[in-house]
Amino acid sequence: MIYFDNSATTKPYKEVLDSFITVSSKFFGNPSSLHSFGGQAEKLLTQAREQTAKLLGVKMSEIYFTSGGTESNNLAIKGAALRNRNKGKHLITSSIEHPSVAKAMEQLEQEGFEITYISVDDTGRVSVDEIERAIRKDTILISIMHVNNEIGTIQPIEEIGQLLIAYPDILFHVDAVQGIGKVPLSFKNNRIDLCSISSHKFHGLKGTGALYIREGVKIDPLFSGGNQERTLRSGTENVAGAVAMAKALRLTMENGKEGIEQLRKIQTLLRDGLNKIEGLKIHTPIQYSAPHILNFSLKGIKSEVFIHALEQEDIFVSTTSACSSKKKSPSKTLLALGVAEELAESAIRISLSFENTEEEARTVIQVIEKTVNQLGKVMKR
Amino acid sequence: MIYFDNSATTKPYKEVLDSFITVSSKFFGNPSSLHSFGGQAEKLLTQAREQTAKLLGVKMSEIYFTSGGTESNNLAIKGAALRNRNKGKHLITSSIEHPSVAKAMEQLEQEGFEITYISVDDTGRVSVDEIERAIRKDTILISIMHVNNEIGTIQPIEEIGQLLIAYPDILFHVDAVQGIGKVPLSFKNNRIDLCSISSHKFHGLKGTGALYIREGVKIDPLFSGGNQERTLRSGTENVAGAVAMAKALRLTMENGKEGIEQLRKIQTLLRDGLNKIEGLKIHTPIQYSAPHILNFSLKGIKSEVFIHALEQEDIFVSTTSACSSKKKSPSKTLLALGVAEELAESAIRISLSFENTEEEARTVIQVIEKTVNQLGKVMKR
Ligand SMILES: Cc1ncc(COP(=O)(O)O)c(C=O)c1O
Ligand SMILES: Cc1ncc(COP(=O)(O)O)c(C=O)c1O
Repeated sequence: MIYFDNSATTKPYKEVLDSFITVSSKFFGNPSSLHSFGGQAEKLLTQAREQTAKLLGVKMSEIYFTSGGTESNNLAIKGAALRNRNKGKHLITSSIEHPSVAKAMEQLEQEGFEITYISVDDTGRVSVDEIERAIRKDTILISIMHVNNEIGTIQPIEEIGQLLIAYPDILFHVDAVQGIGKVPLSFKNNRIDLCSISSHKFHGLKGTGALYIREGVKIDPLFSGGNQERTLRSGTENVAGAVAMAKALRLTMENGKEGIEQLRKIQTLLRDGLNKIEGLKIHTPIQYSAPHILNFSLKGIKSEVFIHALEQEDIFVSTTSACSSKKKSPSKTLLALGVAEELAESAIRISLSFENTEEEARTVIQVIEKTVNQLGKVMKR
Repeated sequence: MIYFDNSATTKPYKEVLDSFITVSSKFFGNPSSLHSFGGQAEKLLTQAREQTAKLLGVKMSEIYFTSGGTESNNLAIKGAALRNRNKGKHLITSSIEHPSVAKAMEQLEQEGFEITYISVDDTGRVSVDEIERAIRKDTILISIMHVNNEIGTIQPIEEIGQLLIAYPDILFHVDAVQGIGKVPLSFKNNRIDLCSISSHKFHGLKGTGALYIREGVKIDPLFSGGNQERTLRSGTENVAGAVAMAKALRLTMENGKEGIEQLRKIQTLLRDGLNKIEGLKIHTPIQYSAPHILNFSLKGIKSEVFIHALEQEDIFVSTTSACSSKKKSPSKTLLALGVAEELAESAIRISLSFENTEEEARTVIQVIEKTVNQLGKVMKR
């Protein structure tokens, strides 16, 4: 199997699963229990928090464990909006955010908040000037993703952070779910107040994630209850999941610069190979793109047909994002970039992990060439 | 080790962990992905939903997977309240709910909802008459727990359900986190609209749970995004966690009547043994109590001191609930029952699982006797 759908989800590392099992079976106590057996679980949770914080270059007390990227995004955005609604009701975001940001914004709109959507250019980038112009006296939150999940465009997070130094009252949330480990980002240096990550995107387990909340930033919880995670996320902690996430993050980060260069090499190999195919248009920009995502369309061949054809060869790729893949409407992101509807309907996303090889990329190019020829012939009949 | 803190959390069954590992490592695809590898994951999720529904006697389409009991309670209560706020703003609950219900109510109070708290008698039971009197024209939701987590009292869910037949517009939520598998409860026959369960309380994994939402009942989501779980709980599904929960539920249910009788036998053994100890007062009522919880106080010995003394003998019990154990304020539940503050400060909760034995109970009684003697002597000096 060649698994090229790593932006949808990744295969958990063996070591990650091993940690999960050890903690679940041997240290299954409730970290809130007063006895020493609960204390052992609490200690493991603290270690996972310390390790995660260290790998992200932040303080331990700034890491809040959640059930994944969607929860982190909803908690950050709704929590910040509800907490600060007396200061203002204006929020800013981009037109190509993940649904867990976009729909959270829509829900807030129904609650009386006003949302400004920043457009993107044909590479998928927002303009920092447009953000500045959108800022109002009552703006309380700006949410911009780090790496787009469909086309891999990297947003100018540093520049937005620079801009926001002059606006200390506006909270800055970054959805870093796709970028973590693959596109370096300093939470600390970029004036980021809130930042979401999701474990299953870097070989951790589904149902685990974290939200970075900068010291001093106040938000409302979505879950109230036993006051776990310093009152911001009640619920018995998934200790084994948190330990597994810390391990997945460490193993991911260990790939370092070399790993990222290797991803870029595979991506370039794919780009060059695919560029030679007639009627194939690559949407992922060359500049400002993450090393692991490559989005393209095959004119006249519907995404679904193509995906099932590749599947016959044991190759797994995506339409655009996993979430919207069953909706069968063309990708909002591609339309926002200015891609024609017809072309957007035949979009394919390849997404890599550190486990993929150049060899696999070469095979995939060959199979795509072959498949395009076959499907092309069928269509011409 | 004698683990008598099963209401805080349980040890995952080996088979549950095995299933989790198999699904996580072999079927790690994203159920939303269009390709067959995603399809396999989707199929497993469907099977887990089917199995869970069957075991609970409800329809597959009525089961929504969540990250645990706290999420299920918050989703049920906040989701129902927000969805129905145009119909009314009055909610009814008891004075001894778990914090994930009580605090969700408090948060709603700040949003302009009005809450009526039903008192309990000295056995911890609410009165159905009092509930009926509390009902107003603008009542939209009643939330009453099935089994209390601190003292084990079973609430008159059937009678409340009977009462509510005459009030079809009021939603009925039941927190069944402590009762599941140990105190039979038909969701279907008791006019329950919303019901919460949590996997780690029945040898499943932390971070997984479910909410039953009766067909036709409409609530708002807390997480918006990719529209997973029929739009009510977005976020990439924890497929392995759901499969593991279905398995844990099946294994738990398989203990059946005999298992429950065995729990009761151990509880009675403990009750009889503890009753012989001077100065020991049992709070768990004889009638209307679950078979796995026994709450008592040792006059003059602070809970914390006693727990650490038992810990020296490798026996693990709780103060009251795990969540509130670090707060060091006496249990709200015990105070609501009319227990004096001083006595409430020395409350101990024993909570059993199907894995515990009569042998363990006999050992625990002996150790408690010994400990009481020693601590008693120390105090008299
Ligand atoms: C950019 C982005 N944000 C958020 C999410 C949601 O994360 P999760 O799947 O953990 O809910 C995803 C993936 O689905 C994503 O790609
Ligand atoms: C009665 C009751 N409701 C809800 C919960 C919360 O469940 P969870 O720990 O899965 O968040 C618990 C346990 O903590 C409980 O005992």
